[in-house]
Amino acid sequence: MRPTVVFMTDFGSGGGAVLAGVVRSIDPELGVYDFDHNIEPYNIRQAAYQLSTVVPYWPAGTVFVSVVDPGVGTSRKSCVARLAHGSYVVTPDNGTLTMMLGEIDEVREIDEDANRLPGSEDVHIFHGRDVYSYTAGRLAAGMIDFEGVGPAYPVEKVVRLALTNIVPHLGTGWAEGGIYNFDVPYGSARINIRNREFQQVAGFAYGDLFHVAVMDGDRLIYEGEGRYGRTFGDVEDREAFLVGDIQPGERQMLRFNTCDNFIKAHAPEIERDQSLTVDWRVRFERP
Amino acid sequence: MRPTVVFMTDFGSGGGAVLAGVVRSIDPELGVYDFDHNIEPYNIRQAAYQLSTVVPYWPAGTVFVSVVDPGVGTSRKSCVARLAHGSYVVTPDNGTLTMMLGEIDEVREIDEDANRLPGSEDVHIFHGRDVYSYTAGRLAAGMIDFEGVGPAYPVEKVVRLALTNIVPHLGTGWAEGGIYNFDVPYGSARINIRNREFQQVAGFAYGDLFHVAVMDGDRLIYEGEGRYGRTFGDVEDREAFLVGDIQPGERQMLRFNTCDNFIKAHAPEIERDQSLTVDWRVRFERP
Amino acid sequence: MRPTVVFMTDFGSGGGAVLAGVVRSIDPELGVYDFDHNIEPYNIRQAAYQLSTVVPYWPAGTVFVSVVDPGVGTSRKSCVARLAHGSYVVTPDNGTLTMMLGEIDEVREIDEDANRLPGSEDVHIFHGRDVYSYTAGRLAAGMIDFEGVGPAYPVEKVVRLALTNIVPHLGTGWAEGGIYNFDVPYGSARINIRNREFQQVAGFAYGDLFHVAVMDGDRLIYEGEGRYGRTFGDVEDREAFLVGDIQPGERQMLRFNTCDNFIKAHAPEIERDQSLTVDWRVRFERP
Repeated sequence: MRPTVVFMTDFGSGGGAVLAGVVRSIDPELGVYDFDHNIEPYNIRQAAYQLSTVVPYWPAGTVFVSVVDPGVGTSRKSCVARLAHGSYVVTPDNGTLTMMLGEIDEVREIDEDANRLPGSEDVHIFHGRDVYSYTAGRLAAGMIDFEGVGPAYPVEKVVRLALTNIVPHLGTGWAEGGIYNFDVPYGSARINIRNREFQQVAGFAYGDLFHVAVMDGDRLIYEGEGRYGRTFGDVEDREAFLVGDIQPGERQMLRFNTCDNFIKAHAPEIERDQSLTVDWRVRFERP
Repeated sequence: MRPTVVFMTDFGSGGGAVLAGVVRSIDPELGVYDFDHNIEPYNIRQAAYQLSTVVPYWPAGTVFVSVVDPGVGTSRKSCVARLAHGSYVVTPDNGTLTMMLGEIDEVREIDEDANRLPGSEDVHIFHGRDVYSYTAGRLAAGMIDFEGVGPAYPVEKVVRLALTNIVPHLGTGWAEGGIYNFDVPYGSARINIRNREFQQVAGFAYGDLFHVAVMDGDRLIYEGEGRYGRTFGDVEDREAFLVGDIQPGERQMLRFNTCDNFIKAHAPEIERDQSLTVDWRVRFERP
Repeated sequence: MRPTVVFMTDFGSGGGAVLAGVVRSIDPELGVYDFDHNIEPYNIRQAAYQLSTVVPYWPAGTVFVSVVDPGVGTSRKSCVARLAHGSYVVTPDNGTLTMMLGEIDEVREIDEDANRLPGSEDVHIFHGRDVYSYTAGRLAAGMIDFEGVGPAYPVEKVVRLALTNIVPHLGTGWAEGGIYNFDVPYGSARINIRNREFQQVAGFAYGDLFHVAVMDGDRLIYEGEGRYGRTFGDVEDREAFLVGDIQPGERQMLRFNTCDNFIKAHAPEIERDQSLTVDWRVRFERP
């Protein structure tokens, strides 16, 4: 059974077909899967989040290709990261790996002389096809091994985006953290406070009420009262609500929203630019 | 040859990747196929229609996963329906099966204790991944049989949406029915009158003219004259037109439109909410 | 290893599922791949371009199904083209093949009596499912050979769209051509001047400056100065820029843009209708 190559880009609808063709032409038995080609153009933060929610759920050996690459043709590195659980991510080293840094086993810079679709040497604007998909396909097919990608470099040098500058803090009856991602259509904010610690350190239990304040430095963005619960059905009796997010176990963070869609009602500017919230601070406490 | 698991959700672009990963991690040889992740959020009527047009065309044994689930985390049942022709539908029992009720052989409620992705016990907001895709994958892989899903319950108890309250009636020279679905981009209304009966009972033949009135109780929505034909090219000489829809044989219904896009020109409010038309009555008669 | 059937349509999100089902019901081992279902409705020019960029990258034997078909149910031919490198395109003969005419080996009109999904005889509005996908699936599965599609007709009779009426001309220090396609989101215009000839005949080298004028007959659309380079990073110091496009070798054309998005800033009307530019003339010369 050959592994699958999974594609995520900001190329828009139809953007995967030529990438999949390159992979299938390398080995017609490779699986191909289009994860998403509608990442907002150049939105590396969104790419980083999306990738981190999907990669752990695919079998070891899967090769992910992520092409959200504002710097195509500049000096940013092209790399392949091998993850601890055995999958690979082929991507520009531009922050896309931010949320998986802890799981990277080894990272290698793609040697583009050795790993480039034959005949594409005179094309300089389509690395996603000519370098990334070609490298991914040959790696998945076993035509090159991981060493064949190119030289290794220190994992510490992989580019890391500051999703939020706020380090989470918790004490009895309160917890404070930053926003590392938004679920735009629904308006939820993802908070970098672990759900387990919210219970074990701050002492909250499902069903409890909380007071919340969202601050951008000294500026109050939102203040209100809400309920903390297992799922949406449990918490709709208050204006604000808080549940555990979609990751299981240790990785489960908090997910915050208001009944009127937090983004639309209280922070519409971040629809244009999610990085505006890197310094926003969210504080929950017992009312 | 392993069966394919086919996904339909309202998760938006990229929504299938984690579901497909769960299925592939169960058995890397299972097929996965993304039907659609752009169902309008919470629009169960649209899900019900879309599913009914696709399910009969896939091979027996295919496992469909439909997640349009406004009630995630509430008391609505999660179920698997086995269809007469041998395929399965994994879905919240919330009306999604409305247009396939006649084809359900047996339905079982998912026992979530037995059928939940290991390690996901503390996640309460992602049944599509943790329960539905996991159950679908194990069923498709033969790791559980249909009994292993959970307890059977009467097919009569499956939730049915009232797509239209109007029962079709036909007589010589006339036919009356309700609207059970819209093809929004093109503006067509799907009428619950069988094309065969329109010919055999009402006596219309391709090429005939008709008078049409669309009523919401006593309120006239639209009135006009049109031509009934085989295909669009045959009928464009009149303001309104009527053709047989995309289902073959007994299941072929009528599809009605006006040259100026019926929805946009005469019923724009239903773009927001298709359920507004449950009591609309459409009457065709010889002019 | 069975070949893959690749689908491109203007049916919108979810439009491939029933087509893929038809193919899989013919032979469950056939591959299916959804290239794109968001072609702008009825935009044959876009279909022609998209297809031409993807087809050469898939393995020989791949069967492409393109359904952008304003004329469904009228007298336009349904055809299958066999390409020199061994793949097939199933499409209405309505201009979709315009950019691949030079690669067509043989073309056959689909005999719809022999090649129609059994039971679909009374459906007249869904050729994409009942004729095209059915024919593609049987061809891919080897149930019919190419002759089994229907009668051959001269390749010269295949419908050709005039993407641009401007024939490219080049001389020392200048080059003039037409616009044959736009990359709408980014605003680039694709010019029918070969990149190699721009260097070898007109004498431009990467890094050179140019003066450009875009004319619609006597009307000046845009005039400015720009830089010609390998990739975007090399040319951003001027208002306009020009790079080689994504095709390699002989097929590499020029791709022109301005830093403010050429379409949005200087030609917004063509977002609605790309065919408005068939007579536009683009002239580059040394400043």
